[in-house]
Amino acid sequence: MIIMRPFVTVNCAMTADGKIASVLRKQMRISSAEDLARVKELRKNSDAILVGIGTVLSDDPHLTVKGLSYEENPLRIVLDGRGRLPETARVLDDLAETLIVTCENCSKTWAGAEVLRTGRDKVNLTDLMEKLYDRGIRTLMVEGGGEVISSFFENGLVDKYCVFVGSMIIGGRTAPTPADGNGFEQPVNLKLVDYKILGNGLLLTYEPVNDL
Amino acid sequence: MIIMRPFVTVNCAMTADGKIASVLRKQMRISSAEDLARVKELRKNSDAILVGIGTVLSDDPHLTVKGLSYEENPLRIVLDGRGRLPETARVLDDLAETLIVTCENCSKTWAGAEVLRTGRDKVNLTDLMEKLYDRGIRTLMVEGGGEVISSFFENGLVDKYCVFVGSMIIGGRTAPTPADGNGFEQPVNLKLVDYKILGNGLLLTYEPVNDL
Repeated sequence: MIIMRPFVTVNCAMTADGKIASVLRKQMRISSAEDLARVKELRKNSDAILVGIGTVLSDDPHLTVKGLSYEENPLRIVLDGRGRLPETARVLDDLAETLIVTCENCSKTWAGAEVLRTGRDKVNLTDLMEKLYDRGIRTLMVEGGGEVISSFFENGLVDKYCVFVGSMIIGGRTAPTPADGNGFEQPVNLKLVDYKILGNGLLLTYEPVNDL
Repeated sequence: MIIMRPFVTVNCAMTADGKIASVLRKQMRISSAEDLARVKELRKNSDAILVGIGTVLSDDPHLTVKGLSYEENPLRIVLDGRGRLPETARVLDDLAETLIVTCENCSKTWAGAEVLRTGRDKVNLTDLMEKLYDRGIRTLMVEGGGEVISSFFENGLVDKYCVFVGSMIIGGRTAPTPADGNGFEQPVNLKLVDYKILGNGLLLTYEPVNDL
């Protein structure tokens, strides 16, 4: 059975020692201006942008594209299994549509946001992808954090992985990385399909190796 | 005052999500055959190769270059502040000279290995670098793990950082990364001086940005 789902692009920026933030989870400027411009284009061309609740709690992003209207902005999706999203979060502003995804046993609602519930103890990503496809989402950009990206890889839901490698070292054994979670028993194999200098760093683009 | 010390090259291989091993610290084949050949050449051309005790305890490496005699092999250096190195470790074999570096309050000795003691609670890397220079070591290759590499960066002792980025994702919030430790308050800024495809991955070469 073929399940129809959106084309999933994971995008992130890491230091040259593999960190997406410092040990304090403080947002760092890792991307170059050139990379930020690329990310803006990528957002513009996506039907939806997805982040985890951890990213919202530490960075409080808008997840919108400057200059786009409410209708033009991609759908904002927050994975928030236990319903921890504060009412004051910027993703709940009126600049774009927002979808909060919780587990089935969560009953929390948010003013101005739609809620989708799937999965018992954790969000069922595969089911979510089908439901997003059913509502017309064809291209999904996953921006993090490391826990969410790890789940997408673990469930075989990544079609493209773009990682900007910033020219810096931040250190820290507990600092978040592009793919956290519990780790896989076997690595997910990728193919490097492109690499290019963007300002003072390097953008690497990978596609999964299909063992079919 | 200018302190004379060896030229320090840090070399490691990480996955595309910034890991040098799995969460179980099991050694993974991240490097391509082409990268392994490069590492062999780099070892050959180094006066000494340094690793931390963590790397020895998990991987038990020989730290020798196949085909080189005892005299030709680089000096093997193990940072082992508390003297945990087992007598049976392969770095103590008779294929090359070995130097164990402990803190001053450690009294342990190992048959067939020289011991150097510096630093109270942890090895004093800056002092060690001077002492290595004094005994004729001009080029030092630091092969890991993440704790040792982090200390070298923290102490401003890195002249070149080579990281091979393997085309795979392993995940794991506790998996070791190229620079672990407690993390820096401010990032160490680098300059990307070279990048090239080596087999199925990419070798990135950085130099520190000198703010002098």
